[in-house]
Amino acid sequence: MSQPARLTALPAPVRDPFAVRWPLASTVSDRERGPLPHGSPGAVLRRTAEVLGEPRIPSTGVGESAALDLIAGLLDEHGIDLSHPHAAAHLQPPVLQVAVDADALASASNASMDTYDSGPATLAIEQWVVRALASLAGFGPQADGVLTPGGSISNLLAILIARDSAAAAAGIDVRRHGLQGFDRPVVFCSELAHFSVQRACAALGLGEQAAITIPSDFDFRLRVDVLAEELAKPGRTPVAVIATAGTTDFGSVDPIAPIAALARQYGAWLHVDAAYGFGALFSERLAPLLADVPLADSVTLDLHKIGWQPAATSVLLVADRSRFAAFDRSVDYLNPADDIDSGLDGLLGRSLQTTRRPDAVKVATTLTAYGRAGLGTMVDTCHELAHAAAARVVADSNLELLAPVTLTTVLFRVAGQGLDATGLDALQGEVRRRLLTSGRVLIGRTKLPARGGRPAAVALKLTLLNPNATATDIEDLLDQVVATGLDVLTGEGAA
Amino acid sequence: MSQPARLTALPAPVRDPFAVRWPLASTVSDRERGPLPHGSPGAVLRRTAEVLGEPRIPSTGVGESAALDLIAGLLDEHGIDLSHPHAAAHLQPPVLQVAVDADALASASNASMDTYDSGPATLAIEQWVVRALASLAGFGPQADGVLTPGGSISNLLAILIARDSAAAAAGIDVRRHGLQGFDRPVVFCSELAHFSVQRACAALGLGEQAAITIPSDFDFRLRVDVLAEELAKPGRTPVAVIATAGTTDFGSVDPIAPIAALARQYGAWLHVDAAYGFGALFSERLAPLLADVPLADSVTLDLHKIGWQPAATSVLLVADRSRFAAFDRSVDYLNPADDIDSGLDGLLGRSLQTTRRPDAVKVATTLTAYGRAGLGTMVDTCHELAHAAAARVVADSNLELLAPVTLTTVLFRVAGQGLDATGLDALQGEVRRRLLTSGRVLIGRTKLPARGGRPAAVALKLTLLNPNATATDIEDLLDQVVATGLDVLTGEGAA
Ligand SMILES: Cc1ncc(COP(=O)(O)O)c(C=O)c1O
Ligand SMILES: Cc1ncc(COP(=O)(O)O)c(C=O)c1O
Repeated sequence: MSQPARLTALPAPVRDPFAVRWPLASTVSDRERGPLPHGSPGAVLRRTAEVLGEPRIPSTGVGESAALDLIAGLLDEHGIDLSHPHAAAHLQPPVLQVAVDADALASASNASMDTYDSGPATLAIEQWVVRALASLAGFGPQADGVLTPGGSISNLLAILIARDSAAAAAGIDVRRHGLQGFDRPVVFCSELAHFSVQRACAALGLGEQAAITIPSDFDFRLRVDVLAEELAKPGRTPVAVIATAGTTDFGSVDPIAPIAALARQYGAWLHVDAAYGFGALFSERLAPLLADVPLADSVTLDLHKIGWQPAATSVLLVADRSRFAAFDRSVDYLNPADDIDSGLDGLLGRSLQTTRRPDAVKVATTLTAYGRAGLGTMVDTCHELAHAAAARVVADSNLELLAPVTLTTVLFRVAGQGLDATGLDALQGEVRRRLLTSGRVLIGRTKLPARGGRPAAVALKLTLLNPNATATDIEDLLDQVVATGLDVLTGEGAA
Repeated sequence: MSQPARLTALPAPVRDPFAVRWPLASTVSDRERGPLPHGSPGAVLRRTAEVLGEPRIPSTGVGESAALDLIAGLLDEHGIDLSHPHAAAHLQPPVLQVAVDADALASASNASMDTYDSGPATLAIEQWVVRALASLAGFGPQADGVLTPGGSISNLLAILIARDSAAAAAGIDVRRHGLQGFDRPVVFCSELAHFSVQRACAALGLGEQAAITIPSDFDFRLRVDVLAEELAKPGRTPVAVIATAGTTDFGSVDPIAPIAALARQYGAWLHVDAAYGFGALFSERLAPLLADVPLADSVTLDLHKIGWQPAATSVLLVADRSRFAAFDRSVDYLNPADDIDSGLDGLLGRSLQTTRRPDAVKVATTLTAYGRAGLGTMVDTCHELAHAAAARVVADSNLELLAPVTLTTVLFRVAGQGLDATGLDALQGEVRRRLLTSGRVLIGRTKLPARGGRPAAVALKLTLLNPNATATDIEDLLDQVVATGLDVLTGEGAA
């Protein structure tokens, strides 16, 4: 493999001089190996399956420690190491050891959030967590929230509440009678909104076509002028407008204030999907990006993205807790009226789940352990790493920066002199796959939307969420991207 | 408090003489205290909230160990102890320590199931788990499955697949266009089916009224004759029939074979909700109850019920893996076509989630550690405990047995000479609340459906899922129930 010359030096290391290495967890012992196992996906999965053997429950067991050794061995050898500084693909951070320890407490208690007597303490812990997060977002005392199994489900719950409340305004009780007669309900979101919006529309019976996607501007933000035009079109019932605060790939934040004004004008629910971006609120420097979040009726936030929590740690905040009434339910075996009258209530009426794991335990522990300042420093470190990486990309003629840094992602591609658009796209895909199968570098990819005549294009993506990674680590990573790009272009070392 | 005479001796301890105490986890250190904290719900939650303080993220943290001490202290003092032998309320078992340890590995890896490069090894582990479980259920090689955040969500996903496939048969593409034009879709289930069926119908846009509930017979099983009549009614589109294999309160198993025949006749999807009952398959003795499960198109099973796993460990099995196509989705940043062609696929297309925690890690570890025999012994022990408890109830004139034992629940009530139906109902509620607030005994309650002129009645319920509990423990528990009943009846020691 040819080693390209380093074209530029990076700025001095970005680590906060007061921070020691953040204590992150990992299930991979060999730190030298790289973030992924070496080999093609097929070969890696086959090796794992071979160790597990026939998919049959054995008639007698091998005992706890042999079983743990077996599974831990598989995670070590064929699993992912997100704490590796070259893991930079997805909104999937390495996790804080303290969160893992606290999550084990949650598992050991097996408390559930649905009733008082399925786990008292965790009810109060979740309430503390959601109120603390609502307060960080700038919401008032009427706000409340619930932990959910992921950002996709948080978005679904928000759209469900919006759907039922818009239907109620039209005299339709969806909960009892279904959607029959509800006149073309639609939701609006950016073309860069997360696809869970479309999935939710399909699941909720609205159909994917109910999600009207609005083009984004040159900063990857929803175009408010187009939203205004679309909202003005007759013959549809606007159920919700979804603003993304931190798009998955670009980190761009839709203009929440004018979107909120339009949503209000048309009587639509305003949901802010801050699954990725909410963590910016931990940082003094980045928090202004989310200043208008309190204009929302509901907010999705994922602390298993920026927040360094193990999945799932998603939260749905609502500005007005009475909106959870959409999930109210009285059940003879869980919350009969005379028990409720005696104070024996739980949080069954916050979601579609019955048993619900106390995911708030790890969040309460982490927020208490690190405070806003600790998490803010981690955010700032990753943000600076992204800027350093972007600077390195800009200064390298083998690479091309494709978007400005907003949060912690960097969009770029490998330059391919003389390649047409198709060839360039294929190059990016091939570079990434070679890196992945090498096991040494794990980066992401996505598609850059078409812009002013230029067609959509495949982009490579760094999602920088490891606060222990240094500028040097990222420089090494990009060196390997460039070298692999040259290999592909010169036909060397094909997989 | 008056001590009632013991009216009967229990049979000899039911524990398997070869089994040592099962290693169960707990976050409560004081085994003497009881399964719940002492005090009214309001007081307990207030004390917990006071320790947490204002719901604000502190600006600086207290460090990992102080934070863990704080939260662990709250779980210890104000949390639930499911490993206590007097915890017998819900389908919420104490959990095996090995599952907790393995779950901590899952947290530490923070792998996700959506793509290959978000965690290779766990893809193979989940595939092994779902195939091993499908094989235990008797399904063929076409079967497959997915882990979900709970039985309620598994049921929702099953009804979603059924909805979309029934609509497709009627020429309607719900996923794209929504439910408009789909003529009165309905699902059928027993009146004793879990309420998550109704919740799913509401969420999916069908409305709760789409769930047609069929009365149950004297054995608490769905009445097939009534189902046949209902299916024959014109003007509705039968989307699915749901058989419950192990009703939440009674453990009763609906007659799956005749239900399957009817579902087939009317072209409806057959979903078996074995959230509770599936664990019977671990036991040689109880497995015949579920012999007809392979007739189902889909099955919900919860290993966080019988299975001793921390929540959530639900699985949706489908007899034909191609039915997961309902969730297929191609996403630029996750699974673009050229990556799929290169084998870089994940399990995004199995559910509505994007990030998905590798809950299969603990299951694979537990199944390997204990084998079917180990888990079967645990099931049998709990089943025998239930029989012992029922015998004790029958022999006690202060108590009344209300249903036969099928799996591990016992339905009974405190006798109240001279009380009318309302008084009897109130008595049960009061007895349970006093026991709960005492912290010493945690039992459940539910409503016995009306039968042959007798109105619906409040019942007390033991859900016996602790394989370390002995017949003596349950005898103690029932002694306390009787004593509390006498206290209430004589007006002593009111709360
Ligand atoms: C903006 C946004 N919203 C929602 C989601 C979905 O979150 P989850 O993966 O937790 O379901 C993502 C995931 O990347 C996201 O980036
Ligand atoms: C028969 C049955 N189905 C479904 C559920 C829902 O399961 P979960 O609590 O995991 O959502 C339950 C819960 O008790 C149940 O008993």
